[in-house]
Amino acid sequence: MLIDGLQCGHFGRDIFQQLRQADIGCVTVTCGFWEDPLESLDSLGRWRDLVRENADLVDEARGAADIRRIVESGRTALIMGFQNSDLFGGRIRLVEMFAELGVRVVQLTYNNQNALGGSCYEEEDSGLARFGREVVRELNRAGVLIDLSHVGDRTSLDAIRHSEKPVAITHANPKRLFDHRRNKSDEVIRALAERGGVIGCATYRNITGDAYCGSVEKWCEMVARTVDIAGIDHVAIGTDRSHHFTKPDYDWMRMGRWTRGVDLGASPPSRPGKAPPPDWLIEVRDIGKIEGGLASVGFSAEEVAKIAHGNWLRLYGEVFGC
Amino acid sequence: MLIDGLQCGHFGRDIFQQLRQADIGCVTVTCGFWEDPLESLDSLGRWRDLVRENADLVDEARGAADIRRIVESGRTALIMGFQNSDLFGGRIRLVEMFAELGVRVVQLTYNNQNALGGSCYEEEDSGLARFGREVVRELNRAGVLIDLSHVGDRTSLDAIRHSEKPVAITHANPKRLFDHRRNKSDEVIRALAERGGVIGCATYRNITGDAYCGSVEKWCEMVARTVDIAGIDHVAIGTDRSHHFTKPDYDWMRMGRWTRGVDLGASPPSRPGKAPPPDWLIEVRDIGKIEGGLASVGFSAEEVAKIAHGNWLRLYGEVFGC
Repeated sequence: MLIDGLQCGHFGRDIFQQLRQADIGCVTVTCGFWEDPLESLDSLGRWRDLVRENADLVDEARGAADIRRIVESGRTALIMGFQNSDLFGGRIRLVEMFAELGVRVVQLTYNNQNALGGSCYEEEDSGLARFGREVVRELNRAGVLIDLSHVGDRTSLDAIRHSEKPVAITHANPKRLFDHRRNKSDEVIRALAERGGVIGCATYRNITGDAYCGSVEKWCEMVARTVDIAGIDHVAIGTDRSHHFTKPDYDWMRMGRWTRGVDLGASPPSRPGKAPPPDWLIEVRDIGKIEGGLASVGFSAEEVAKIAHGNWLRLYGEVFGC
Repeated sequence: MLIDGLQCGHFGRDIFQQLRQADIGCVTVTCGFWEDPLESLDSLGRWRDLVRENADLVDEARGAADIRRIVESGRTALIMGFQNSDLFGGRIRLVEMFAELGVRVVQLTYNNQNALGGSCYEEEDSGLARFGREVVRELNRAGVLIDLSHVGDRTSLDAIRHSEKPVAITHANPKRLFDHRRNKSDEVIRALAERGGVIGCATYRNITGDAYCGSVEKWCEMVARTVDIAGIDHVAIGTDRSHHFTKPDYDWMRMGRWTRGVDLGASPPSRPGKAPPPDWLIEVRDIGKIEGGLASVGFSAEEVAKIAHGNWLRLYGEVFGC
């Protein structure tokens, strides 16, 4: 059984069926990037409809016990996540309320600096700002997992130190293995792991690099090098797979409403559009190859289980509190 | 023990202490009039703070069992209510989410027609409109009590018929006893009662009239005449008492953002400002005189208990589902 720490895009019955085929027991879905509070409520509303309409394949999970129950019923647990903190609209009191509505993962910043802190794409990372400290404390209190995937290194280190609960990098790779602004320094990964956090290794080609995209074994070697940095109890999977993304989706994800210009996000200028998936991950169901790949690069059964689901489950239990 | 079906204004420790002194076990508080979804979340956030800061005196109730538990602990249960449906922002999916955040009473319209139906102050009442039928069904499903106090007669009759659960007039009086647009025709009151609903008799002078404001016995005579219309199982208390209201509060309540002119709400032109409270209800704690008053106008102990709390508790249990 696999737990995927991050997917995005347009989910539907076709995707849910492939998640089942790949024995993916749990996925954190992206409910928003730049969405404000009301748009985020709308998004949660659409997600509730989608879950109800596909109740034979998926269900919403709000705790680790939910995940186990849903997996035992032969379905995939979906965790509601946001890749930005704009859903709170600068209001500390909305953290608890969005948590009550089921939100369980929130990234402090997306690609831009915000009132909480600095992003990985900013030239200067302010560190965790005044409102950021408030939100970290409130996310802890409300049982919401803090995600640092797109957050700048300095803000990430501050958040790891400031948070009373372990935090996550749900979808990124070590910068040492592929040098990209979205990837993480050893310092950040080690600090995260020391406090009990987990990094989900990504399959998104722009931050993985062609070398690790050639086969599932190649990608699993990257996972093994990540384990060398973080330790076996702190590495998991966060594919960053996006479903049915078209240009308007990329434009919203990258430019939102914040620029009149063009921003390419993680893409290199030589390939501004959709990055091709890894050679081994053409269909969503191909994610199911990962467990075999991990075994083939030398992980024991126990280690495979930790990376495939155990580390996420342990972290979710600690943070969600149920 | 008394249950008050509606109060509004600025609550604080002073008011909560008076509620305790009057043995008021439960109050539905007004969290908004014209507030949009985000403003309504802000309001709920402030209410949560207020409840936490005064946890020795009050707690939030989301079901009839909560009310009993809070009353047994010697505190007052607060039910979160809205006097308008603007909190939903025209979005059917927000009904369920606001219910999850604790909202238990929603009035279909305040003083103006909206997308749900017509108000008591409109010259023409459209009846329950398309979105109104959707919201009634969704409020039923989400376990939220429908309030018709400021709703027009035709829309009220439609809502009573359309609702699968009994509904309420939380704060109004019979038009037959005091002729005012805000008060209710016998036809509406009887239709409400036939479907198991409850009307909460108000103490607000503008809709009660001076004659019934002279003493608690006079006011309880009005309650007795209301029982003649609705029956003993369908009459309760909804004082409509407002706390610490100042001119900006009245202006917001009456004019919101919908007019550049002046609207007086329920006030007669001869007394546009704050109406004096009933002669017997100077302080909030004076609400505690009602049970004695009901007995003095001839209600038996069992009947007093129904009017004072039993009818609301029965209705809340049926609608809230817990």
